[in-house]
Amino acid sequence: MNILVVYSSNLNKSIIKEVFMKYKKSFYQIKSNETIFDSLKEEIDVIGYYNLPLQDTSKYKEFAKNVKQKDIAVIGIGGSTLGTFAIYQFLLRRKEYDKKLHFFESTDPTDIKLRLQKIDLNNTMFIVISKSGNTIETISIFKYFSSLVNMSSKNCVIISENDSKLTTFAKKHNMKTFEIPKNVGGRFSVFSAVGLLPLAIIGVDIDNMLLGAAKIRNNFFSQGSFYDAIMEKARFMVENKNRFNINVVFSYSTSLEGFNKWYIQLWGESLGKFNINGTRQGLTPLGLIGPVDQHSFLQLIAEGKRDKTITFIKVEDFEDDTTIPLNTMDGFDDLTYVDGLKFAKLIDEQANATIESVSNLKDIPYDVITINRVDEYNIAKLMFTFQLLTSVVGKFVQINTYDQPGVEAGKIILKNKLSYAKD
Amino acid sequence: MNILVVYSSNLNKSIIKEVFMKYKKSFYQIKSNETIFDSLKEEIDVIGYYNLPLQDTSKYKEFAKNVKQKDIAVIGIGGSTLGTFAIYQFLLRRKEYDKKLHFFESTDPTDIKLRLQKIDLNNTMFIVISKSGNTIETISIFKYFSSLVNMSSKNCVIISENDSKLTTFAKKHNMKTFEIPKNVGGRFSVFSAVGLLPLAIIGVDIDNMLLGAAKIRNNFFSQGSFYDAIMEKARFMVENKNRFNINVVFSYSTSLEGFNKWYIQLWGESLGKFNINGTRQGLTPLGLIGPVDQHSFLQLIAEGKRDKTITFIKVEDFEDDTTIPLNTMDGFDDLTYVDGLKFAKLIDEQANATIESVSNLKDIPYDVITINRVDEYNIAKLMFTFQLLTSVVGKFVQINTYDQPGVEAGKIILKNKLSYAKD
Repeated sequence: MNILVVYSSNLNKSIIKEVFMKYKKSFYQIKSNETIFDSLKEEIDVIGYYNLPLQDTSKYKEFAKNVKQKDIAVIGIGGSTLGTFAIYQFLLRRKEYDKKLHFFESTDPTDIKLRLQKIDLNNTMFIVISKSGNTIETISIFKYFSSLVNMSSKNCVIISENDSKLTTFAKKHNMKTFEIPKNVGGRFSVFSAVGLLPLAIIGVDIDNMLLGAAKIRNNFFSQGSFYDAIMEKARFMVENKNRFNINVVFSYSTSLEGFNKWYIQLWGESLGKFNINGTRQGLTPLGLIGPVDQHSFLQLIAEGKRDKTITFIKVEDFEDDTTIPLNTMDGFDDLTYVDGLKFAKLIDEQANATIESVSNLKDIPYDVITINRVDEYNIAKLMFTFQLLTSVVGKFVQINTYDQPGVEAGKIILKNKLSYAKD
Repeated sequence: MNILVVYSSNLNKSIIKEVFMKYKKSFYQIKSNETIFDSLKEEIDVIGYYNLPLQDTSKYKEFAKNVKQKDIAVIGIGGSTLGTFAIYQFLLRRKEYDKKLHFFESTDPTDIKLRLQKIDLNNTMFIVISKSGNTIETISIFKYFSSLVNMSSKNCVIISENDSKLTTFAKKHNMKTFEIPKNVGGRFSVFSAVGLLPLAIIGVDIDNMLLGAAKIRNNFFSQGSFYDAIMEKARFMVENKNRFNINVVFSYSTSLEGFNKWYIQLWGESLGKFNINGTRQGLTPLGLIGPVDQHSFLQLIAEGKRDKTITFIKVEDFEDDTTIPLNTMDGFDDLTYVDGLKFAKLIDEQANATIESVSNLKDIPYDVITINRVDEYNIAKLMFTFQLLTSVVGKFVQINTYDQPGVEAGKIILKNKLSYAKD
């Protein structure tokens, strides 16, 4: 039986216990920032991702420098690939790498076929990533590739939990293995071997990457300026979750499409849960790319229901000199104000104009994150900030941020369907 | 002044007029299906897209057969490219075409550079598409390309409104032009020259495409089975719009990612509006791809807030024989139930399992659309169905489905910013 009691906010549990002989409740309060922070600090060695930025990276670099293949096939899905792809796609903006990453995620046969056309199977390094070691998509693709090319220690490396069947299999065949620690969830694993190994292989400066993540980690846990910003944003989102239940990330660069997808998994899968009181929680993530989605989704933001917050992400990187020329179209005298403008400046001003138009509407909560330089350090800062934000929001709404019980039912149904199909 | 009056549902306006000397209201009822249908029929020659499936296509085929270039660059954004890309990406699933479409949409300089690498500018046909003729992204890219290569009737064709400055420019230079009728909105223009010309050029059977669209059009306007299905779905969405304000399309094929993006523009930009009573309307569209997003968004669907409807789209096309082999991984005995399975069967059963798990939850409204064959006819049927659904929902909530006034403010701010920057 639940007893409703009206009490002032400084009434704590022990007082309640004194007032009632027995007490049970099914409501909860949003706790204070300090309580949340203490609780996060307590789990700093329990939730594995917090300390990933501090790890020694020599084993990844050691392995990476011996990889001769130019094409690197990453076989994995969800948390095993989304973060790596996000960083890779973003960095391609500035730099061409000698080696290429190819991601095999889907069981869609057309997708597999189209991606296979881009690699030479006999001169490819395969990185197979599955935390549990029995992800159906990953294992199915790995099995298929194993029938096309001989997998050995020379062309195959495994990233999985230490005691998974996949790791055992790899060791039997003398393949190199890297561990995903049990306490690092898939969607929080980009700074583990999952992201570091493939990125190190193609030549990304993973130490600089971890420096960026560590910068945010240390600032947050010493309650610096990022702590204030993250707590304020998380608290706003939680206190207004019923009103603004959709959280849009509006990134002004096609090179952030991978980041958007990574964010959608992080936010959706971490926060879409029953909380300790059995109440459905969940903020819906949505990813947009500017300026393209100005011509798609912006109308809904401007005139639709006020149920969205927006985080604009801008890349303030003017090193690209591609310029709209002067008077190249004889007889066309419209839009002369773009003549002589750099595209980098144009897209930046498009972002500014959209932000200003949203700001003018007054009743849409938004914030703007500006990335000053396209490099490993800054994308890692951005991603670690979003991970911490997710952890804080999860604490506020009192859920387990790190599991995903809601997807198990479908897996069991699938297994039954397939086992039956084989009989 | 508004007077609130309680009246029974069969009380019509003339009776109300009799009861009150003067009457004004700021509320509205969801009208009957028949009323909505009559209203749609009345506008069949006013809203341009309804009759596009019936048009003569010879002018597109005539132009197409004379195009010698292998690379076709489509310069456009939003409604000028999303539909064409959706169809192109879907059809690539089954067929390789001799000619390739390349889409230039964004002002992101990196995006432009990466796409330029894939074409030979001197051996490319440019299709410049802008309904208004002064879309800033399209014109900026066109200006830039005009400085790199000489644009003439031999390598450039314009698709725009008949009296736009872009059309005037094209005529001055003897470039071929195709018209976007004024009464065909960008996001409803895929079956006009916008989609038909580029697709005809690469060899898509555009007559078969229009046959599919016409099939739905004629069935709907003669109140056949598609009429019933569309009206029922639209009515459900409108009657429950406050409860289920997010409409997810969950497509089980990476080749439908373009379709998802097209749907997001269609749904978001058409329905995110103030209605006749000044009330904010808007259903939020969201696109997912299976099985990848089972590892991302599904948790939120399963355990998060009940604010979503889901439309599953399955491709039942088992012509791909790519098969997971038997026993290729010596010493790995997990997941044996996928051995010997076709990938096409696996992804189909993954879709079925997800649908069943959602169905078991009981309180998530969903429907399932199955595409039996990958061809022009079927993708056109699907797209025309979604267009009609959008029009019907727009009628129900009493908005103007075909304009987009909410994006104008940002355009004016941008123009001011850029004009100022030039001073």
